[in-house]
Amino acid sequence: MTTIDHLGIAVKSLASAKAFYEKLGLQVSPDEVVEGERVRLVMVPVGESRLELLEPTSDDSVIAKFLAKRGEGLHHVCLRVPDLPATVAKLKQDGVRLVSNEIKIGAGGHRYIFVHPNSAGGVLLELVQS
Amino acid sequence: MTTIDHLGIAVKSLASAKAFYEKLGLQVSPDEVVEGERVRLVMVPVGESRLELLEPTSDDSVIAKFLAKRGEGLHHVCLRVPDLPATVAKLKQDGVRLVSNEIKIGAGGHRYIFVHPNSAGGVLLELVQS
Repeated sequence: MTTIDHLGIAVKSLASAKAFYEKLGLQVSPDEVVEGERVRLVMVPVGESRLELLEPTSDDSVIAKFLAKRGEGLHHVCLRVPDLPATVAKLKQDGVRLVSNEIKIGAGGHRYIFVHPNSAGGVLLELVQS
Repeated sequence: MTTIDHLGIAVKSLASAKAFYEKLGLQVSPDEVVEGERVRLVMVPVGESRLELLEPTSDDSVIAKFLAKRGEGLHHVCLRVPDLPATVAKLKQDGVRLVSNEIKIGAGGHRYIFVHPNSAGGVLLELVQS
């Protein structure tokens, strides 16, 4: 079954965003720095999904550029799908615009691909293998 | 337990957005018009959550104004909380900015309130009673 894996939310201040979600009564994970993406992040579990709060650690990070252009807010939605290769094959066949041509391998070996917002109602949509 | 109830996504063309999510293998509900909000919408169940695709039916709808200003994309995130009055009391005490002062009653009697994006990392956050 397809589920929402996480929502990536770009924030200027991780401290402020964490404080807000703690006020909502949610648990917030310890800070983690992802050097490759030049972001500091925390995860906030919400049911079967998570909110991923992302603060840039450098002006040249993708998240810093997003904040400069759009301000704080949702950066991407990630869906967890049962069969990523089959889903990607179907999307390609249907002419859906993908950000990369092939499935990529990320941290911890997880497999992912991004659908371009133009094909997904303005949402930058990440798909990951369940 | 708090869960993601739905993500509200503003789209110019409901037909295109529906077609995309059907290509992803998801079920899309029949169209529904909400006259009060001047939107036509469909729901796309995703695990314990739903995507709510929103197309304006009039230029003066909130969604039409959002599209004109920001383009297509995520309009709001809705969390389902176990005790909405207690959550709202806590947020008020902590100085969190809410869009309305009181909990509102919507279609079907559901109770909801919106947190202002300035208090929630740029995300327009709806809270509903579980």
